[in-house]
Amino acid sequence: MNLLYTFDLLGTAAFAASGALAGIRRDMDVFGVLVLGLVTAIGGGTLRDVLLGDTPPFIFKDETYLYLSVAVSLLVFLFHRRLIFLSHPLTYFDAVGLGTFVVIGTHKALAFKLGFFGAVMMGVMTATAGGMLRDLLSAKVPMILHKEVYASACLAGGALLYVLQRTAVPPDATALISASTVIILRLLAVRYNWSLPRAAHKTT
Amino acid sequence: MNLLYTFDLLGTAAFAASGALAGIRRDMDVFGVLVLGLVTAIGGGTLRDVLLGDTPPFIFKDETYLYLSVAVSLLVFLFHRRLIFLSHPLTYFDAVGLGTFVVIGTHKALAFKLGFFGAVMMGVMTATAGGMLRDLLSAKVPMILHKEVYASACLAGGALLYVLQRTAVPPDATALISASTVIILRLLAVRYNWSLPRAAHKTT
Amino acid sequence: MNLLYTFDLLGTAAFAASGALAGIRRDMDVFGVLVLGLVTAIGGGTLRDVLLGDTPPFIFKDETYLYLSVAVSLLVFLFHRRLIFLSHPLTYFDAVGLGTFVVIGTHKALAFKLGFFGAVMMGVMTATAGGMLRDLLSAKVPMILHKEVYASACLAGGALLYVLQRTAVPPDATALISASTVIILRLLAVRYNWSLPRAAHKTT
Repeated sequence: MNLLYTFDLLGTAAFAASGALAGIRRDMDVFGVLVLGLVTAIGGGTLRDVLLGDTPPFIFKDETYLYLSVAVSLLVFLFHRRLIFLSHPLTYFDAVGLGTFVVIGTHKALAFKLGFFGAVMMGVMTATAGGMLRDLLSAKVPMILHKEVYASACLAGGALLYVLQRTAVPPDATALISASTVIILRLLAVRYNWSLPRAAHKTT
Repeated sequence: MNLLYTFDLLGTAAFAASGALAGIRRDMDVFGVLVLGLVTAIGGGTLRDVLLGDTPPFIFKDETYLYLSVAVSLLVFLFHRRLIFLSHPLTYFDAVGLGTFVVIGTHKALAFKLGFFGAVMMGVMTATAGGMLRDLLSAKVPMILHKEVYASACLAGGALLYVLQRTAVPPDATALISASTVIILRLLAVRYNWSLPRAAHKTT
Repeated sequence: MNLLYTFDLLGTAAFAASGALAGIRRDMDVFGVLVLGLVTAIGGGTLRDVLLGDTPPFIFKDETYLYLSVAVSLLVFLFHRRLIFLSHPLTYFDAVGLGTFVVIGTHKALAFKLGFFGAVMMGVMTATAGGMLRDLLSAKVPMILHKEVYASACLAGGALLYVLQRTAVPPDATALISASTVIILRLLAVRYNWSLPRAAHKTT
């Protein structure tokens, strides 16, 4: 599980960077930027733990996540113009975070005896609620609700994990396959600019 | 309690439809529409359970609510133009949901030993928080805070339930009377376009 | 602790008033104004208790907070034009609330064995999350994220409390010193119009 922890921290850092950047774009002060970075990075897992009743949430049991998120957000605040060369790799780190968070969330929900829908929902929420909170705090409609194949990749990975863990596939392979599915789908979506259908409501 | 469960599912479906419609109006993709339908339908009860400490919330113990909400939202997404004839009945189903959710929420809060204010607040929140989340995710000021007699009907029903359950009225009659009060007040408010006073702040 | 309780109620009243005023400015009806007052006053402490797993939250154990918040909000709704003379003292009461909430929040988090970051974060959140919810419900970017030295004063007070409670300073003095630090920093910030740096993002 050491690899998973490494991926988890990598994803946390990527999510914090995306939150901090959103704060900078909204002209927030340094505190606002840190809060947005923190909320984006840890919001999903915290909401998951509160819903599962596993309180205090994981961030208070291992403060690494908190320090890492704030450190990354502070670096982004200070050097964001010199860090532009990181924006391309950031997409990859973000995808890694997405895949890792889905696996961790779905896995934990199953340990709490949730059913198929609940477990997959928890996986998706772990990966996406931080970004939704980031957008809410920026007074915007959450990006995930109207753009890009982001949640669908998570849904696929969570559902796959649920199915695989009922088979003879060993747990580590299950986690790896599920996370990779999310990561690959997400990167393909970015590369080919996939989007989901929306309703033709104009004429309604 | 079988009747209550039927009403509960009817209300859940109506709330999901209202959430899905809001998503379509905001030009969300199919995932966004499903999330808005789901959040509107189950948000209030989930928040209630988290506040009461009854975790994981009811939706993870009986996944019917989740499947129903998503199915209704998907139907609305696919056929919303052909479902216009349902918009009138939807007002009635929505009112039924409102009354049912108030009764269930207040009742559960009393079982958790909450006082008058807390129990009524939980009832109102069970019925209204889903719609508030729907509006927040659409980046709008929650409709309930500035328009229509919606929460007041819930307040009346919750308070009535609190009073009646301390009398000799049998529990089933208490639930029925309280829910009906909410439903009737809500429908009268729609019919006669009632609204609450607001402060004359322009001159301040 | 009697003094702390008095300060707590004073702060609750001040926060409720600020929430109710925000509701009036957004042209909400009387229900909306009461909700905004209530959420602003009790949102921070409620979120803290949910995150710590101390459910139902404090407001349901001592309903004084609920009645006080609603009474203040109703008074503001009815007489807000005649209460303008209170807007100056309100700044002081608000600062008292800020200091008191930070001390109570940090203190409680330490009793739940949280670490330095978690405990200070809980203190800041107790004092500021109500105002953030108020702004979210008004569909605005939370004021605290882009204006004024508000959270920084809380951070300083929370960190000071954490340090002092590990020394020989008696608990009451620790609480008093920490709360006063927040209050004084906050009032100085208002007086001298302090603000935090923001990133120079325009050219990015």
